[in-house]
Amino acid sequence: MTESTSASPSSRTPRLYWEDFEVGTVREFGRYEVTREAVLEFAARFAPQPFHLDDAAAAKSLFGRLAASGWHTAAMAMRMMCDGYLLDAASLGSPGVEKLSWPAPVYPGDVLSMRNTVLESRPLASRPEVGLVKSRNEVLNQHRQVVLSMEGFGFFRRRRAGAPPA
Amino acid sequence: MTESTSASPSSRTPRLYWEDFEVGTVREFGRYEVTREAVLEFAARFAPQPFHLDDAAAAKSLFGRLAASGWHTAAMAMRMMCDGYLLDAASLGSPGVEKLSWPAPVYPGDVLSMRNTVLESRPLASRPEVGLVKSRNEVLNQHRQVVLSMEGFGFFRRRRAGAPPA
Repeated sequence: MTESTSASPSSRTPRLYWEDFEVGTVREFGRYEVTREAVLEFAARFAPQPFHLDDAAAAKSLFGRLAASGWHTAAMAMRMMCDGYLLDAASLGSPGVEKLSWPAPVYPGDVLSMRNTVLESRPLASRPEVGLVKSRNEVLNQHRQVVLSMEGFGFFRRRRAGAPPA
Repeated sequence: MTESTSASPSSRTPRLYWEDFEVGTVREFGRYEVTREAVLEFAARFAPQPFHLDDAAAAKSLFGRLAASGWHTAAMAMRMMCDGYLLDAASLGSPGVEKLSWPAPVYPGDVLSMRNTVLESRPLASRPEVGLVKSRNEVLNQHRQVVLSMEGFGFFRRRRAGAPPA
């Protein structure tokens, strides 16, 4: 996708439950074209630092040229995750992420994609109908460089509440 | 502020350098009104999950009612940090954040503010003109509940490159 503000609020029937996020599973998906307009628009609203808004300032920065805000990259990652699997999953949200890093800049013209690796999985003791999944989510650019990496937690409904893990 | 897409790319002369982020310093700042329109717009673009887009779906979710995407909250935090100190600082960007969590939902109508606590500070061995600052950044709602917490790293230029820490 490129820029889109359309989205179906989705009363989709979930295909993916907690049981479907097996430790070790790797999913690759997504295609997100980073436009200059979107970089400037996000930065103007949320991260108005010179190196995200101004070519001359960016040239003198550690980025070398106009670069997307890391929070914009995180938001684009979220969109790819939604389209890639979250909207088809019995997702109940996320309590947080660990180790969010931006090892390389994202530039206008880049084409991003995602790699999701399931790291841990366990039922929630407090809510037998819910399971927790920890996964590493990486955003890659068209050169297969990792431009964002994070370890995220997600809550998912269990297919058979209270059943022992498969 | 509420919604604004205006921003001066800022050739401001920095007031704050690495030396000005002393360990233990606490800064409170910011005021960000969360509008329903902004919650829906961000979600439609970046996080089109039903509980961020649809009142009925949200009512049945863990959030209880329509809630902002955690990535929207992170972006609003970034805007408050920019306006609160980053745009007045010799900021060189961030390599990443740790322990990003969303302990309570953000709802339309909430009024957010920030608390920044400097946790660690050291010069960069590889670049004597640059120092690294680690700080805890918390977003509070109007009830003083923490709705986002993260430990972030930031690069800042040193006031006197290579000088020993004050």
